[in-house]
Amino acid sequence: MVNYKVADESLSEKGKEALYVAERKMPVTAKVIRDRFTKEKPLVGVVIAGCLHITKETGNLARTLKSGGAEVYLCGSNPLSTQDDVAAALIKEDINVFAWHGNTDEEFYWCIRKCLEAKPNILIDDGGDMIVTLHNEFPELIEKGTIIGCQEETTTGVKRFRAMDKQGALKVPLFPVNDARCKNQFDNELGTGQGIISAIYGMHVLFAGKKVVIAGYGHCSSGMALRARGLGADVIITEVDPIKALQARFAGYQVMPIAKAVPNAEIILTATGCKHVLPPRPEVFDMLKDGVILGNLGHFDIEIPTKELYEYAIEIKPIRRHVEELILPNGNKIYLLAKGRLANLVLSEGHPSEVMDMSFGLQSLMSEYIVRNKGSWKAGIINIPPEIDDKVGFLKLESMGIKIDKLTEEQYNYIHGYLEGT
Amino acid sequence: MVNYKVADESLSEKGKEALYVAERKMPVTAKVIRDRFTKEKPLVGVVIAGCLHITKETGNLARTLKSGGAEVYLCGSNPLSTQDDVAAALIKEDINVFAWHGNTDEEFYWCIRKCLEAKPNILIDDGGDMIVTLHNEFPELIEKGTIIGCQEETTTGVKRFRAMDKQGALKVPLFPVNDARCKNQFDNELGTGQGIISAIYGMHVLFAGKKVVIAGYGHCSSGMALRARGLGADVIITEVDPIKALQARFAGYQVMPIAKAVPNAEIILTATGCKHVLPPRPEVFDMLKDGVILGNLGHFDIEIPTKELYEYAIEIKPIRRHVEELILPNGNKIYLLAKGRLANLVLSEGHPSEVMDMSFGLQSLMSEYIVRNKGSWKAGIINIPPEIDDKVGFLKLESMGIKIDKLTEEQYNYIHGYLEGT
Amino acid sequence: MVNYKVADESLSEKGKEALYVAERKMPVTAKVIRDRFTKEKPLVGVVIAGCLHITKETGNLARTLKSGGAEVYLCGSNPLSTQDDVAAALIKEDINVFAWHGNTDEEFYWCIRKCLEAKPNILIDDGGDMIVTLHNEFPELIEKGTIIGCQEETTTGVKRFRAMDKQGALKVPLFPVNDARCKNQFDNELGTGQGIISAIYGMHVLFAGKKVVIAGYGHCSSGMALRARGLGADVIITEVDPIKALQARFAGYQVMPIAKAVPNAEIILTATGCKHVLPPRPEVFDMLKDGVILGNLGHFDIEIPTKELYEYAIEIKPIRRHVEELILPNGNKIYLLAKGRLANLVLSEGHPSEVMDMSFGLQSLMSEYIVRNKGSWKAGIINIPPEIDDKVGFLKLESMGIKIDKLTEEQYNYIHGYLEGT
Amino acid sequence: MVNYKVADESLSEKGKEALYVAERKMPVTAKVIRDRFTKEKPLVGVVIAGCLHITKETGNLARTLKSGGAEVYLCGSNPLSTQDDVAAALIKEDINVFAWHGNTDEEFYWCIRKCLEAKPNILIDDGGDMIVTLHNEFPELIEKGTIIGCQEETTTGVKRFRAMDKQGALKVPLFPVNDARCKNQFDNELGTGQGIISAIYGMHVLFAGKKVVIAGYGHCSSGMALRARGLGADVIITEVDPIKALQARFAGYQVMPIAKAVPNAEIILTATGCKHVLPPRPEVFDMLKDGVILGNLGHFDIEIPTKELYEYAIEIKPIRRHVEELILPNGNKIYLLAKGRLANLVLSEGHPSEVMDMSFGLQSLMSEYIVRNKGSWKAGIINIPPEIDDKVGFLKLESMGIKIDKLTEEQYNYIHGYLEGT
Repeated sequence: MVNYKVADESLSEKGKEALYVAERKMPVTAKVIRDRFTKEKPLVGVVIAGCLHITKETGNLARTLKSGGAEVYLCGSNPLSTQDDVAAALIKEDINVFAWHGNTDEEFYWCIRKCLEAKPNILIDDGGDMIVTLHNEFPELIEKGTIIGCQEETTTGVKRFRAMDKQGALKVPLFPVNDARCKNQFDNELGTGQGIISAIYGMHVLFAGKKVVIAGYGHCSSGMALRARGLGADVIITEVDPIKALQARFAGYQVMPIAKAVPNAEIILTATGCKHVLPPRPEVFDMLKDGVILGNLGHFDIEIPTKELYEYAIEIKPIRRHVEELILPNGNKIYLLAKGRLANLVLSEGHPSEVMDMSFGLQSLMSEYIVRNKGSWKAGIINIPPEIDDKVGFLKLESMGIKIDKLTEEQYNYIHGYLEGT
Repeated sequence: MVNYKVADESLSEKGKEALYVAERKMPVTAKVIRDRFTKEKPLVGVVIAGCLHITKETGNLARTLKSGGAEVYLCGSNPLSTQDDVAAALIKEDINVFAWHGNTDEEFYWCIRKCLEAKPNILIDDGGDMIVTLHNEFPELIEKGTIIGCQEETTTGVKRFRAMDKQGALKVPLFPVNDARCKNQFDNELGTGQGIISAIYGMHVLFAGKKVVIAGYGHCSSGMALRARGLGADVIITEVDPIKALQARFAGYQVMPIAKAVPNAEIILTATGCKHVLPPRPEVFDMLKDGVILGNLGHFDIEIPTKELYEYAIEIKPIRRHVEELILPNGNKIYLLAKGRLANLVLSEGHPSEVMDMSFGLQSLMSEYIVRNKGSWKAGIINIPPEIDDKVGFLKLESMGIKIDKLTEEQYNYIHGYLEGT
Repeated sequence: MVNYKVADESLSEKGKEALYVAERKMPVTAKVIRDRFTKEKPLVGVVIAGCLHITKETGNLARTLKSGGAEVYLCGSNPLSTQDDVAAALIKEDINVFAWHGNTDEEFYWCIRKCLEAKPNILIDDGGDMIVTLHNEFPELIEKGTIIGCQEETTTGVKRFRAMDKQGALKVPLFPVNDARCKNQFDNELGTGQGIISAIYGMHVLFAGKKVVIAGYGHCSSGMALRARGLGADVIITEVDPIKALQARFAGYQVMPIAKAVPNAEIILTATGCKHVLPPRPEVFDMLKDGVILGNLGHFDIEIPTKELYEYAIEIKPIRRHVEELILPNGNKIYLLAKGRLANLVLSEGHPSEVMDMSFGLQSLMSEYIVRNKGSWKAGIINIPPEIDDKVGFLKLESMGIKIDKLTEEQYNYIHGYLEGT
Repeated sequence: MVNYKVADESLSEKGKEALYVAERKMPVTAKVIRDRFTKEKPLVGVVIAGCLHITKETGNLARTLKSGGAEVYLCGSNPLSTQDDVAAALIKEDINVFAWHGNTDEEFYWCIRKCLEAKPNILIDDGGDMIVTLHNEFPELIEKGTIIGCQEETTTGVKRFRAMDKQGALKVPLFPVNDARCKNQFDNELGTGQGIISAIYGMHVLFAGKKVVIAGYGHCSSGMALRARGLGADVIITEVDPIKALQARFAGYQVMPIAKAVPNAEIILTATGCKHVLPPRPEVFDMLKDGVILGNLGHFDIEIPTKELYEYAIEIKPIRRHVEELILPNGNKIYLLAKGRLANLVLSEGHPSEVMDMSFGLQSLMSEYIVRNKGSWKAGIINIPPEIDDKVGFLKLESMGIKIDKLTEEQYNYIHGYLEGT
């Protein structure tokens, strides 16, 4: 019997197709590991609860865990990222789902609790809310040893748990899957970073010859810059960190303060984690070029001062899906993507399945690892075993048909000796 | 009173929005020239008939001609490219339109005749069918001097008229706008070439790390290659011309025969003008990699052997808009875009407005030029005046906020003298 | 018995090594064609005179012609490009050479005459001086039919002969080898264009993050721009032609007037064919940034106003080989390459052998073609047979280990029919 | 009175010029900081000893320290990297130098001892040999508090001292300048990585269209790959680390085992830190393509099996400066750079001055910081203060004329709060 609360069960056919499209692009998670899990059943008797973005890719993670014998519960880690069709499809496959697009704060926690009430042995979290709720409201799951290990998928969540660990407040073995190389070396630049670009390019905006201003030169923003340039744009970077600013410059980009960059910008994209990247002042708004496109990739909708822009505009009208035209007092028209929210998610389909394949392959293998080695760890942050991290890499290479060399023992000893021996 | 036959008048609001979106990206045609035409009215008393793709960009050309005082008639140059909403919107603005999506061959010529019955003074053709029909069926328009000049927009059309001219069969002054630098230096690489790429990228397929095989290294295909590489793909070129093959190699691409390239290809794109680029043989189909995406940019749907693939497949199912999954006898699944037709037009919105702005700016200025100088030419091919070609370039630069230097007389004489004088 | 006048016979060993280094990189000219010529001896009894840059690459052309049985005479087409060691080595191989570095104008023509006195049957010219001298001073070679065909290697020369042909003054069959695709599609962008860049990069100047201003966006200059950007530079293009300026912009470069570009430029490179690209005015010189590097690729040393800069400077001192430091009145120091002459030739070794291999492969095959078909042409410009042009392409591909597809007859007819048939 | 032992004092004029060329490209170290040091004299009374590569860039570091009032002693950290002309020039400026090209192991330590005998207060080390010698042979300098702080410049050295620190054997405060962002984010990719490329390019080898195999995809090797691609090469990466192999693939490179990559390679470059990257087996040597160029960037000359290649070759001859032609038994000729040693140093001039400017700017500021805060630290590894790291970044940006934004307090608190607060 499957437990669930979803928006609309009738969407299951559409969801099934979406799951299929993703599956085809996730050979590590949805083929190699799933096939082995199906045969070996390493997760039999285990309950796994995930608080994750309920997307077609996550759906495939859930399927793989289930194929390994686990009983799976899912709730959504963000009210806006839930794909209702996928949620509907999953329940047809006996995966327990409590998630719907646009749930309230209260409902959000209700969903988490429904998952925890299932007495899970492993938690997979995206942001940390489920694990914190576990500590606060379900301490018995910890005390009685029901929980054997937890995984956290995001930078933010890992920071949170490191802080808790320092204060002695973390009561479970926590595996920061976010920190694995097979995750963090690919997710940001290849995944997040290209989101807005592909959305805008798919809208058939010509990047060639456009002046594109990108605020920030971290992982996501440098990924955006690389793609925009690859499409023929003339890219300007703004940064507050001097070392990153130099890196951008040595990569061949122009670097300047935002106020100097804005007047000629034809596309402005923000990904800084910083408030009011575009300063919310009339004189700045007046500098915006007629026709400029504004998009944000940062977590919060305050990088572009959306609220202030709406107030300043004399007219606002939707012009395409998730694109609004704002007419400013000086007559200039500007085009705001996704109301200043994460345009990569709203206008596009989120991270490419090819990239999520690695993150979710890791979570699948880590779930198996936790089961096989349960009881080996005390509470606290436990590093991801490098051989599992590498394993995901090897599987991905193999799925791409790429072979690489193996070090001989002599070569290995040589490097090892060199590094250790000086 | 406006004459017309369109698919659905009720689409006019949607068409108006589309026209507006394009207008904003066509400052030369839809702003600078239109504003001047509105003031100066250089086309008063002139009837202009266009046989063109009825798109939001063409709509803006028609508006500009009308703002100059012309009476404008439009019919569609291709039954599949007509945007019915735009057609509906144009008739509200008193532009005479005979065009609807999916018209038959017979209807196609009926539409052309409706335009010619309006006794146009200037024809703007895309492929040559209207001008040929003029010669065959409306000779009186030529004999009585109604026609003062014609423009042809495509390579194919211009070839056709050069052949006619040689045989003494061309009876009108024909301006090959296709050959102008402001058209042919931008249209193919920037326009056509990027079409499929932007469509696939917009579908959120990760180009990074993909093996992309591009058949051909002409203008369109080299444009595709540049973009695919800019998005992180590993690009292989196949070519039959040795010089182009070398150019591709010196640009850093791998070059090999198609049969060697196919087995590892994850995306195959064709733009050769050549039949059966992918040879229609079972052993070739069996080499196609599971998951490969096949798209064509060439004019006809026979570069990829669509018919043979459909026959060979054991199952065909739509998987996304304009994407079909074909399951081959060996179990591999391949993904065919747009049934092998021009994927850049079908999956995307055609040429970017920014590029069409130059082609249509030229046609606007050429219409004015023809009117101002009528009677100056005999029948035959007449070269585009370089100063009008350059004028479009200067206007485009200006609209992009770009200033350039002007040669001094001394500098000019120096170059001129050097080239002539040796 | 070999006839010659060279600078220093004792340099022959060094020259032999240089010839060898080039030979290794010229498989078409110095291996495939040479091997066949050695066996087939198609040029027996033929005298060939070349007025060419006497470099290690040209030396290999001469060797190949000689291996085909020809008697070869060489003189230098430019007094500064003669490599004296190569000249010395060639005479040891019984190639007649009249060339030395730094000869005077008078000596230049003396050398040409020495070659013409040998009663050559075929002339290979670089710039046209030898063929013009033939017309003016050795008309009997034409009248008596000694000359069976001439080849011209440069754009300038071909222009010259087209002008002569129009006026009926060209009295020999002239093959414009410059116009062959296997020559002009590679020479400029890959050969000339990269010269300065490789010289500066070899001096270990960091291109990454440098503001590089390139004057012009023709073949050579766009080649330079591509390479500078590939090394991490931030490239600005200046252009006077609006269409080329737009091409540069759509390729992602910044485009602006030279006066706006100069103040921030760290490297300025000129390749326009135009006088005083950098305006020779004190206020412009005063804008030059402290430390800027100035280099010219254009034919004449007046793109950068060298003379005016020398006069304006308060101190001039050599700082590296072919690099001078000029101290300006405002204290800024600027670095001038090669005294404003062709820095690609002076600081570097001229065109890469790999590229010259194609041009000289063509000249070898054309020499054979002229002999085999002598008497087939009247005086005038005769187009290069496309099959010989293609042949060079095929040989080059083969030497690089690259295979390409061959069109089937059906495919060929299809394209052919399509282009002709409309 | 200056103490010294150098190779040839008469080279001082040439060395002075080299110092000047570098100085012009090192505005942070040799202008801004030097000017301030000259005025403020923060290092008066301090003796600083550096065991460093004695190059034109290091010479400018020494000058800056001296301008701050320090007495400076230098010895060479590598017997092959000492530039004798620079050494000669420095002693004319009262900098004490004990260094000459090609000194023996015994002499190497004698030079270090001469520096330590001067009773230095600060050591700047490159590799750790001076600081280890200090511990072993000059313990009184530590015990009496003469030494107030040490800096180590290399990864290797820092590893060494971390190991010592763990064992309680490190007796001085050690600042790992190597780990500063302003050093390690630029040195490898921009400095080391481009060395071979610029050397080969400067030799006028055409990279365009060449198959270039790069072993490794770490910082140096990925830097090489980027530049080779930027010059038009077709780059193949070999890697043993699966995650790095994937990074290379997602950057668009081909990835494969070395044995598969070798047969078509035209240039092979190694930078792995690993022994016998090219396996030293006859069947591998026989696969090497005729004409291939082999170069190494790794620290030791065993990445390319030089010894085995020399033995296998039937003939070895120098063909250009630091390039040898080896003829193999199968008749193929291969070209070995720098006898398999660091080709970036041997064929080129080492790291670009522009990059060293940052590393040496940091060491200058750290020397001042150590003096100002002496006595604040116990023995052990002490992190570089982030504000000094950033300061170097800000100075470099300023010297490049680049302005960036400053965070407002509100923005700062927002980020800070966000990261901390979850």
